[in-house]
Amino acid sequence: MTLNIYLSGEIHTDWRDQIITGAKDLDVQFNSPVTDHGASDDCGVAILGAEPNKFWHDHKGAKINAIRTRKGIEEADIVVVRFGEKYKQWNAAFDAGYAAALGKSLIVLSQDEHQHALKEVHAAALAVAKEPMQVVEILRYVLKGSLPA
Amino acid sequence: MTLNIYLSGEIHTDWRDQIITGAKDLDVQFNSPVTDHGASDDCGVAILGAEPNKFWHDHKGAKINAIRTRKGIEEADIVVVRFGEKYKQWNAAFDAGYAAALGKSLIVLSQDEHQHALKEVHAAALAVAKEPMQVVEILRYVLKGSLPA
Amino acid sequence: MTLNIYLSGEIHTDWRDQIITGAKDLDVQFNSPVTDHGASDDCGVAILGAEPNKFWHDHKGAKINAIRTRKGIEEADIVVVRFGEKYKQWNAAFDAGYAAALGKSLIVLSQDEHQHALKEVHAAALAVAKEPMQVVEILRYVLKGSLPA
Amino acid sequence: MTLNIYLSGEIHTDWRDQIITGAKDLDVQFNSPVTDHGASDDCGVAILGAEPNKFWHDHKGAKINAIRTRKGIEEADIVVVRFGEKYKQWNAAFDAGYAAALGKSLIVLSQDEHQHALKEVHAAALAVAKEPMQVVEILRYVLKGSLPA
Amino acid sequence: MTLNIYLSGEIHTDWRDQIITGAKDLDVQFNSPVTDHGASDDCGVAILGAEPNKFWHDHKGAKINAIRTRKGIEEADIVVVRFGEKYKQWNAAFDAGYAAALGKSLIVLSQDEHQHALKEVHAAALAVAKEPMQVVEILRYVLKGSLPA
Amino acid sequence: MTLNIYLSGEIHTDWRDQIITGAKDLDVQFNSPVTDHGASDDCGVAILGAEPNKFWHDHKGAKINAIRTRKGIEEADIVVVRFGEKYKQWNAAFDAGYAAALGKSLIVLSQDEHQHALKEVHAAALAVAKEPMQVVEILRYVLKGSLPA
Amino acid sequence: MTLNIYLSGEIHTDWRDQIITGAKDLDVQFNSPVTDHGASDDCGVAILGAEPNKFWHDHKGAKINAIRTRKGIEEADIVVVRFGEKYKQWNAAFDAGYAAALGKSLIVLSQDEHQHALKEVHAAALAVAKEPMQVVEILRYVLKGSLPA
Amino acid sequence: MTLNIYLSGEIHTDWRDQIITGAKDLDVQFNSPVTDHGASDDCGVAILGAEPNKFWHDHKGAKINAIRTRKGIEEADIVVVRFGEKYKQWNAAFDAGYAAALGKSLIVLSQDEHQHALKEVHAAALAVAKEPMQVVEILRYVLKGSLPA
Repeated sequence: MTLNIYLSGEIHTDWRDQIITGAKDLDVQFNSPVTDHGASDDCGVAILGAEPNKFWHDHKGAKINAIRTRKGIEEADIVVVRFGEKYKQWNAAFDAGYAAALGKSLIVLSQDEHQHALKEVHAAALAVAKEPMQVVEILRYVLKGSLPA
Repeated sequence: MTLNIYLSGEIHTDWRDQIITGAKDLDVQFNSPVTDHGASDDCGVAILGAEPNKFWHDHKGAKINAIRTRKGIEEADIVVVRFGEKYKQWNAAFDAGYAAALGKSLIVLSQDEHQHALKEVHAAALAVAKEPMQVVEILRYVLKGSLPA
Repeated sequence: MTLNIYLSGEIHTDWRDQIITGAKDLDVQFNSPVTDHGASDDCGVAILGAEPNKFWHDHKGAKINAIRTRKGIEEADIVVVRFGEKYKQWNAAFDAGYAAALGKSLIVLSQDEHQHALKEVHAAALAVAKEPMQVVEILRYVLKGSLPA
Repeated sequence: MTLNIYLSGEIHTDWRDQIITGAKDLDVQFNSPVTDHGASDDCGVAILGAEPNKFWHDHKGAKINAIRTRKGIEEADIVVVRFGEKYKQWNAAFDAGYAAALGKSLIVLSQDEHQHALKEVHAAALAVAKEPMQVVEILRYVLKGSLPA
Repeated sequence: MTLNIYLSGEIHTDWRDQIITGAKDLDVQFNSPVTDHGASDDCGVAILGAEPNKFWHDHKGAKINAIRTRKGIEEADIVVVRFGEKYKQWNAAFDAGYAAALGKSLIVLSQDEHQHALKEVHAAALAVAKEPMQVVEILRYVLKGSLPA
Repeated sequence: MTLNIYLSGEIHTDWRDQIITGAKDLDVQFNSPVTDHGASDDCGVAILGAEPNKFWHDHKGAKINAIRTRKGIEEADIVVVRFGEKYKQWNAAFDAGYAAALGKSLIVLSQDEHQHALKEVHAAALAVAKEPMQVVEILRYVLKGSLPA
Repeated sequence: MTLNIYLSGEIHTDWRDQIITGAKDLDVQFNSPVTDHGASDDCGVAILGAEPNKFWHDHKGAKINAIRTRKGIEEADIVVVRFGEKYKQWNAAFDAGYAAALGKSLIVLSQDEHQHALKEVHAAALAVAKEPMQVVEILRYVLKGSLPA
Repeated sequence: MTLNIYLSGEIHTDWRDQIITGAKDLDVQFNSPVTDHGASDDCGVAILGAEPNKFWHDHKGAKINAIRTRKGIEEADIVVVRFGEKYKQWNAAFDAGYAAALGKSLIVLSQDEHQHALKEVHAAALAVAKEPMQVVEILRYVLKGSLPA
């Protein structure tokens, strides 16, 4: 059994690297959005031409990013969504909803301070973790049946 | 043609009433989440028994609310999601993602200040409006072909 | 919003009547399996001819009952499955799995003594109740937003 | 043609090993739930933190196990479900219902004493066998067209 | 519960009338193909223009008939397919396969002499009956739970 | 049997009226796009605000029109697409492709001069007609089994 | 592009071998039912135990064969169904209907004498051929774009 | 992440080669229709026999081409549709509609002169480009996150 995992959400800490490194002995395949913030914001206009209006500037970029996001979520067995400490992070919650509607196994990475605000997202999840290593432990258990020592 | 519309998101202003009142001459049917904030928070424990841990208190409630939300979104032709000025509103973005994955026509109600934070949600929408009456005008045009004077 | 509800599982107590009576002021529609135990066991051979082998006797009946069960579950918004105190009740758990795979909102009615044995079924449910009246209260809340006094 | 097979149900005898060993010359791929009973019961709290309430202890574990079960059933061509002599085994019947709703080919392994209680599950199956080696013979016939001598 | 039933297959005897008349006290809705043999054969060319080649003559007609057949089967809860004594009746078996793939409840009406030739179709059916009145009895049981006296 | 029909394509002649009038004795329900050319072009900016760039002017309008088109096609049993003599009419062909992918019964109304250019669209259709009254005759035959005199 | 092809229907001539041999230079993968007539008839009782009643004897076998048939059709891009000169061949027409409902590309191999009886099956097909080598030529054209000399 | 891309539309310029060459360092897989115009027009009659009527000549060919087109679009993550300067190109718009209904990521390659005529197709696209190299840049960004210098 190979698990395909999409790592969605917060892009300002190294949580993706922690999970990928921690799971390097497991039969897993990871995908993520583009995590270069500047490239992600500007990809639309950089490739398809400038827009004077910021709305359309963002719109062109968000749609190109959607090509990758859709592919990543639709191919995933598990979608991990991390909510960080800052920003609105509506794209993270949007991905969680998208994944839930497709029947994907959803794991949420979040902190206690956001517990109440995330209750609808948590209700759709099969696990709510606080630390990236807990996600690794879930993957290890799901694939090998072994628990942390 | 009867349009079934789910009104998701912010529950602190009367935007739902404005739309429902404005559309009262149209062949539309509206559904919404429970908008009584207290009831929505406590429905789980009020019906199924108290939980000392706030996480499970919220969890039980969020799952009961999900019965209504799922039904409302799955039956809808159009899902309108409003993002207000306050709070994280992750449930609104989650509903938007859920609706998008099901191929529903999505209309977002949001303000300029959130434009950048909502770019992924906007990219999935068929219309981005600022005022509830614009939603009414969209419904009127879609059903009758008539534009605002 | 009209809720279509399928009442699956135990047929030896009046729990269905309690729910139907309790919900008589709500916009709900109920379906159930045939609850006449004898008719349910013998429908196959009574209509399509006797079978000397008990396996095929049961098989013919179970398939005719499946016509009703499938229709009931597939049309439902909510599937309520009650596990009683006696018997194996594998058909109840089968219905719960069938409903879960179709993405139906699942409510389980069960007692504490079966908690551990039902943990996988509970994990797929949006609510786990002990009393039929709790199911009525969930329906009332989902439809009207009002909680028990 | 490669057959992907999920082996669900009873975890106290070596029936899975018998099937896997018997089919070792065939183009098949097997998946199963975690069959270490203790790990399966405790995975939720071991990874995500203790719960004083047994319901939530079980709930957290059952949801993590669901990640593996869903993946296993959704990828399977054939789901084999074995009902043993003891316990309620509602998770086995739940898996059978889940598999049936997804249109998977279902094979049931059960004993005569449970024939009547399993009639609804049997009615959804393409084969009802008593011995693990019969499952191997079915797989061999389906893949190679050869019958037991 | 209203059952929508599509009556497919043989058009030379009054079996459809027997079922419709027998079920006139039940909450059922029946659909059928056009049973006027001549109209059914010639509808394509009568409406869309003559074809010198018999293949295309038949092709145009079969496609128009498919509009009705698809609609009838896709809306049905139950598809009843009768195999008569004469002709190849490949359209009946085609409808049965179409219905089976869509997960419809299939009832086959056939005679002993065709038992072996129909074994694959029977294997996909929830009931195999010989007489139209047995179909009525199945419908009555499914809707009302009552068996023939 | 009620047929729901979406009338897509050319908006400069009265072909929709001819079909609707001709079918007024039949159990049919018709939907169409907004056929007021000016309103259809300008709906986006009229409701949601002006765009200096013609691309976005058109984009906002086309997306609002998509709300109606999707609903019309997704609810239809039959999609009739008419190709007129002028313009590119790519939206008509787009609707035909959309309908085909959803498994809708497709009827094309076109003229001999476009036969070769439409061969891929014709290949996906269940009928290719030249005159609106032929569509009416198809509907009458499908619903009543009667052919034109 | 690799094409997966299921070869259904008549098992008394070497048409499958002709196609497989003719296509041996192409990027194709073939599957078929078990074509050993005796094994196909008796697989159920040979593996799962004798049945005195011929109906159940056949039923057990047909269901085991269905495991292979379903897998073969569901994985196929193209389903080729050959109707031979003899027998009812209802399983062939059933497979054609099953394939059509799943949206598979259907190729029918049949003779002129059966043209009228097969008109509904032909209407669902993307090609109607008379000779196995025509199927090979279709596969070669679809994969390589080259036509027969 | 491997992207599977279907290149649909105009066959008279070398745009496909430009994209395939430009993307030769990327993890992509391309499919296209048969681009030999003569073979594409005549494949039906060349393989399955001549037709005196041009409509059926074209029909037989278009259906064989549909085998390849369906497979190509259904397997694709991204469908690129190019509209050239000449001809009606209804098959291109048909493919775009087909892809949109299946939820594929759609990229349109078109020129300013067709902007208004393509507005419905553009509204369904995630990117509208003018040059083949822009498509390559989108693919590079989606796969590697890098933007053009």
